[in-house]
Amino acid sequence: VSYVLDGKPAVTPTLHWREGNHVYWHGSSASRAIRKSDGLDVCLAVTLMDGLVLARSAFHHSANYRSVVIYGRAVKIEDPELKVQKLRNFVDNILPGRWDGLRPMNEQEIKATTVLSLPIEEASAKIRDGGPNDDDEDYALPIWAGVIPLRTVTGPVQDDPRNLPDVARPRHVAEYKIK
Amino acid sequence: VSYVLDGKPAVTPTLHWREGNHVYWHGSSASRAIRKSDGLDVCLAVTLMDGLVLARSAFHHSANYRSVVIYGRAVKIEDPELKVQKLRNFVDNILPGRWDGLRPMNEQEIKATTVLSLPIEEASAKIRDGGPNDDDEDYALPIWAGVIPLRTVTGPVQDDPRNLPDVARPRHVAEYKIK
Repeated sequence: VSYVLDGKPAVTPTLHWREGNHVYWHGSSASRAIRKSDGLDVCLAVTLMDGLVLARSAFHHSANYRSVVIYGRAVKIEDPELKVQKLRNFVDNILPGRWDGLRPMNEQEIKATTVLSLPIEEASAKIRDGGPNDDDEDYALPIWAGVIPLRTVTGPVQDDPRNLPDVARPRHVAEYKIK
Repeated sequence: VSYVLDGKPAVTPTLHWREGNHVYWHGSSASRAIRKSDGLDVCLAVTLMDGLVLARSAFHHSANYRSVVIYGRAVKIEDPELKVQKLRNFVDNILPGRWDGLRPMNEQEIKATTVLSLPIEEASAKIRDGGPNDDDEDYALPIWAGVIPLRTVTGPVQDDPRNLPDVARPRHVAEYKIK
């Protein structure tokens, strides 16, 4: 999330989630990034790198990616119940069913957490996919071209050593898949 | 890279590279993102996600990550020879030795490409690592906690079907490793 701080651009990396025509993110109510975004213009950018595209000329080297940039005014969720509902959606969106098994949020935690929403009204989505696009005459050159695909994967799950002995790894963890 | 456009924050995803105390990125000389960054305040942010941290309360859920945010004024590389040298460093930084085997850049390509530099003077680096940090009393709860590690990997290399038949896959591709 990018915002303007004293006339200069600033970025704070964060997780986000989408519900219908809005994206949401959260943070500490005390944080500068949250205070400087609430009610103000922000830009939320998400990029996934899918590969390195190696062409026959430096100029046509590229990357495969999927990218979304959303522009608009961030608005704080004021209602505490709605805020908790949104945070529940955040957790369950990543790990379906996790929220119900957790120790419930207490009032202090709810107060300390701000959820911001941004309508998806002005946005730019870009995708680059496929192999290199070289200049016509360069295809005659004896230069290797192609793609090195990149993707994000999960590693072996790490159980907290302080888990109680009879607590099994839940299905939403064992079966977690990157969307 | 984030910049200010008509008083509002904007973000353009891009690749970057580092040389000593500067970071660099490039783009089309005609692009808005480049024109609105040259000589102006920008914010360059890089984030690597290392894992999902699942705690016993929603509040202590977190992510493992490495993040750098650099603030400063972007400056265009004016000298064409220096510009090409920088682009060479960009390519060879990702794929050591690739540049020398490519069709050389021509004048039109050099003109159409802008390289911006940003000194690493004002920056914020953050790392979150390890397992969940729960409230003391929550460790007594029968809730599974732990970490789902995430990492970026390469997939099988894809040869361009238009490669000439006697062109072998070079070592910098076959042995490519994510840094």
